[in-house]
Amino acid sequence: MSNTFGKLFRVTVYGESHGASVGCVIDGCPSGLEIKKEDIQKELDRRKPGQSAVTTERKEEDKVKILSGIFEDKTLGTPISLLIWNKDADSSKYLKIIETPRPGHGDFVWKKKFGHADWRGGGRSSARETAARVAAGAVAKKLLKNSGIEIIAYSISIGNVEVDEIDRQKLMNKIANININKNFDMSDWKSTIESNPVRCISREKAKLMENEILDAKNNGDSLGGVIEVVAAGIPAGLGEPIFAKLSSDIAAALMSIPAVKGIEIGAGFELAKMRGSESNDEFIIAEGIVKTRINF
Amino acid sequence: MSNTFGKLFRVTVYGESHGASVGCVIDGCPSGLEIKKEDIQKELDRRKPGQSAVTTERKEEDKVKILSGIFEDKTLGTPISLLIWNKDADSSKYLKIIETPRPGHGDFVWKKKFGHADWRGGGRSSARETAARVAAGAVAKKLLKNSGIEIIAYSISIGNVEVDEIDRQKLMNKIANININKNFDMSDWKSTIESNPVRCISREKAKLMENEILDAKNNGDSLGGVIEVVAAGIPAGLGEPIFAKLSSDIAAALMSIPAVKGIEIGAGFELAKMRGSESNDEFIIAEGIVKTRINF
Amino acid sequence: MSNTFGKLFRVTVYGESHGASVGCVIDGCPSGLEIKKEDIQKELDRRKPGQSAVTTERKEEDKVKILSGIFEDKTLGTPISLLIWNKDADSSKYLKIIETPRPGHGDFVWKKKFGHADWRGGGRSSARETAARVAAGAVAKKLLKNSGIEIIAYSISIGNVEVDEIDRQKLMNKIANININKNFDMSDWKSTIESNPVRCISREKAKLMENEILDAKNNGDSLGGVIEVVAAGIPAGLGEPIFAKLSSDIAAALMSIPAVKGIEIGAGFELAKMRGSESNDEFIIAEGIVKTRINF
Amino acid sequence: MSNTFGKLFRVTVYGESHGASVGCVIDGCPSGLEIKKEDIQKELDRRKPGQSAVTTERKEEDKVKILSGIFEDKTLGTPISLLIWNKDADSSKYLKIIETPRPGHGDFVWKKKFGHADWRGGGRSSARETAARVAAGAVAKKLLKNSGIEIIAYSISIGNVEVDEIDRQKLMNKIANININKNFDMSDWKSTIESNPVRCISREKAKLMENEILDAKNNGDSLGGVIEVVAAGIPAGLGEPIFAKLSSDIAAALMSIPAVKGIEIGAGFELAKMRGSESNDEFIIAEGIVKTRINF
Repeated sequence: MSNTFGKLFRVTVYGESHGASVGCVIDGCPSGLEIKKEDIQKELDRRKPGQSAVTTERKEEDKVKILSGIFEDKTLGTPISLLIWNKDADSSKYLKIIETPRPGHGDFVWKKKFGHADWRGGGRSSARETAARVAAGAVAKKLLKNSGIEIIAYSISIGNVEVDEIDRQKLMNKIANININKNFDMSDWKSTIESNPVRCISREKAKLMENEILDAKNNGDSLGGVIEVVAAGIPAGLGEPIFAKLSSDIAAALMSIPAVKGIEIGAGFELAKMRGSESNDEFIIAEGIVKTRINF
Repeated sequence: MSNTFGKLFRVTVYGESHGASVGCVIDGCPSGLEIKKEDIQKELDRRKPGQSAVTTERKEEDKVKILSGIFEDKTLGTPISLLIWNKDADSSKYLKIIETPRPGHGDFVWKKKFGHADWRGGGRSSARETAARVAAGAVAKKLLKNSGIEIIAYSISIGNVEVDEIDRQKLMNKIANININKNFDMSDWKSTIESNPVRCISREKAKLMENEILDAKNNGDSLGGVIEVVAAGIPAGLGEPIFAKLSSDIAAALMSIPAVKGIEIGAGFELAKMRGSESNDEFIIAEGIVKTRINF
Repeated sequence: MSNTFGKLFRVTVYGESHGASVGCVIDGCPSGLEIKKEDIQKELDRRKPGQSAVTTERKEEDKVKILSGIFEDKTLGTPISLLIWNKDADSSKYLKIIETPRPGHGDFVWKKKFGHADWRGGGRSSARETAARVAAGAVAKKLLKNSGIEIIAYSISIGNVEVDEIDRQKLMNKIANININKNFDMSDWKSTIESNPVRCISREKAKLMENEILDAKNNGDSLGGVIEVVAAGIPAGLGEPIFAKLSSDIAAALMSIPAVKGIEIGAGFELAKMRGSESNDEFIIAEGIVKTRINF
Repeated sequence: MSNTFGKLFRVTVYGESHGASVGCVIDGCPSGLEIKKEDIQKELDRRKPGQSAVTTERKEEDKVKILSGIFEDKTLGTPISLLIWNKDADSSKYLKIIETPRPGHGDFVWKKKFGHADWRGGGRSSARETAARVAAGAVAKKLLKNSGIEIIAYSISIGNVEVDEIDRQKLMNKIANININKNFDMSDWKSTIESNPVRCISREKAKLMENEILDAKNNGDSLGGVIEVVAAGIPAGLGEPIFAKLSSDIAAALMSIPAVKGIEIGAGFELAKMRGSESNDEFIIAEGIVKTRINF
């Protein structure tokens, strides 16, 4: 088992789907960080099942409880323990897993490895465990924000519906600008993302994506998609050579999410088709600072 | 700095390009494994610079020296220390890095982070460090082979030349067969891969790839490519939930290689366009064993 | 912060004295281990404050709650999360810590390091955190017992009252016998230890120890003592060279307990005065097995 | 196997006695630290076998070779690889270990655990591995000195010869003074320690200790002793609660040295006999700073 991630900010997660709870313990968060219960609850509310027709029908309240590490809305520098009680623990519809392992799920492997498969909704192999990650992520987000770093994520494709390249590019240009001007107003983008249940960067495509999902659902089927994650305000030199490069840690974290099967950094696989003269972004001096010609 | 990778089989690497040496220490390799110096040297020979017109012109002998952990061609269970002296340490052509950081290299970030950039060919941020990984990998390969696991890797695209889907599929079918028949003869594929300097799975495409590289080189340019890695004989349940999933560890390791900017597991990004009914591979019982319908 | 201990069986602890709770997450416990809530509660009951006149007057129920990892009295192989709510959270008597750091406590250092001192009874630097260790230890004890390993601990000195060497030696002989006969009946010793509030191996000395403590208490003073820990059934080769020797891991764990300032393995500091010919315990062959002449 | 120690400054060691070499890789040493080969060699010279009549008769040159991480006498921030070739590799006198495991050595356990015992002088279980620690320690010492921290160690007892309490106390008072005056001149003490082969803090006792050792040696016997380690300039708050307390890390490191069987911090086991009113060292305000009444 390996339920701990991170070195300086280290998160340990626990909990089975349809067990008593899921939760996390964060070790290494500095003292004096202002954080309210609402800061964490807000992120859990964004994630919680049963919000719209396009998600699972399972209903969970996902109310966070702070067990330690935060006192009078400030971190103590001690481990932060966050707990979410499971509510919708009706396991009856999972009983058939005992006999027939679901394809694309961990049931079969789990049984082989641990000598049992937790038929209560997949148990630990259920993506319900990611609720604990979201709670920990809410604290990380607050900490990063304090260091001038902001991260947003949104869907760019679901099934066969894809956001236009130009819409993504507009956001990227905005981000490059943010890096130069130290001006972090991404509220436009955020309000678009929050306005639709598929968290898409384009309102029009969001509608099509919803339809795509409902169509699949009506046919007893499911769909995949692609998420884009953008970070602004990252200083040069974050991460550590050789094995803790930022890209390496990101890849490990993302690939540990059950549904993720591919990761690209920057232009990703597109780079394989470019010549060096196209893909490289030259260092220049502009307005007195060293920057790259295109990305920053 | 983070120069150690792995938990049970743990590799620590060191060494700068154009410094005295590169090397590694392997901790956790069991005792009693038969391994000859030649087993390691063979892999270093496959990697070493200056082998053909398509690689860097820098020449390195890359002779491995065993400093500890192996006695009379058997591992002792103690740390295995492997050393490769650097020979071609002519740094004169790198002197301009001091003034102008190269795009797509670590020079600029390194200077920001460590207060200096090692102008001796990039120092630690040079891909020369991967020689130490190859040496450690040779021991890992031997250990895996003893457990019935075999791994091969080959290029499937360089620049705009791509191996046909059907050629890759042939190999995959072969692998599925290996898993069922426990018959590991991949010698055909291996001899194809070794027969060409770009390690391509198709002899015809290999020729085109070579031309593509030489063409770029003649124009003072460079190229990217895609590598496919295939493992046969993996038992169900390797890796650990949640954060040490096999896919997560693989992603971290690969993304730590300087040039890697994208990773796919299985069908990868293709999956995002499939419906669940297409992408899932059902468990069936065939010839008395549980297998998946397609992949195994 | 560093609130995680162990490699294969890894415990993460959290919680402040006078905060909401203390607790732990155990990662790496194998699946299928039988463990009842009572197995854990029993150990917490032994530790809980307010049991007798010789302990702190603070009262805590210390009821354990299992949040994950155990289902139908068996471990799942997933992280085991154990929670203890704090009850007696009256911090009023600690208010003066804000102004005057207590000697021999972490108040001053904590303030220097974290920018605040948790005046609620010491917060994280209070020995209350050890309740979480006891809960985790109860699971470890069960697991070790399944592997034929049993551990007992008892006081051998408190203040100036010391258990006679001969009484300790009797137990040691018993243990050596256990190792040979694989007969683990330590019930006599255990019932003696449980019969007195200072957990002493000698009933007579226990009485004197109690008096010693009460005398100090009546004078507004406190006392120290020495604990002996004995393990039976340890196989040769437990632990790993060089830095995870069993003695090294034990030393780290014990020294992390707030009050511990000295550790001895075996004869400890006595060895410094012995010649090799006295201190070494020769290997002999007896009854067909290799054993040491004295200890085993 | 567990041959890596430390978190921020992390040392990986390797090498068998009577194998090709011993060595270490240091990960995490900051860039820009001035360090000469001589700084490391000096410490190895202090340790090397064969210096006087009181040590082992085995002769080793123990010349350090810097393989990476240091360039033009400055650290690069990259892993520092240090190598010591073994010279005196005559294993003939160890041949009998194959048949009869030595008492008090790892031979028997090693054989049980790894399926072989390295008869070449104990191999990895030989205390020769500590040469690699000394090399790494020389770098650590330099780094600490730059942060105003100085550490000295010396013998206070060998066999039945003990340094007088008063002589140790004089040094302690000096250290307390150093902490207040920020004046680090310990040259007197150092020259005494270096003046005798047993590194004793008292010249008179040193002579007696030598005699004690030679007497044991002449009788084919061996001796133990006690080392005192003193650190000056330690800031409040070094180390991390709960499991990386400075005392816990020190205990782990020291107990991993083959011969160490006991550790005391401060007054150690003496504390068990004191009442709180004696053992506690009150915080006071003196000359405008918070200090403890006695120790600082």
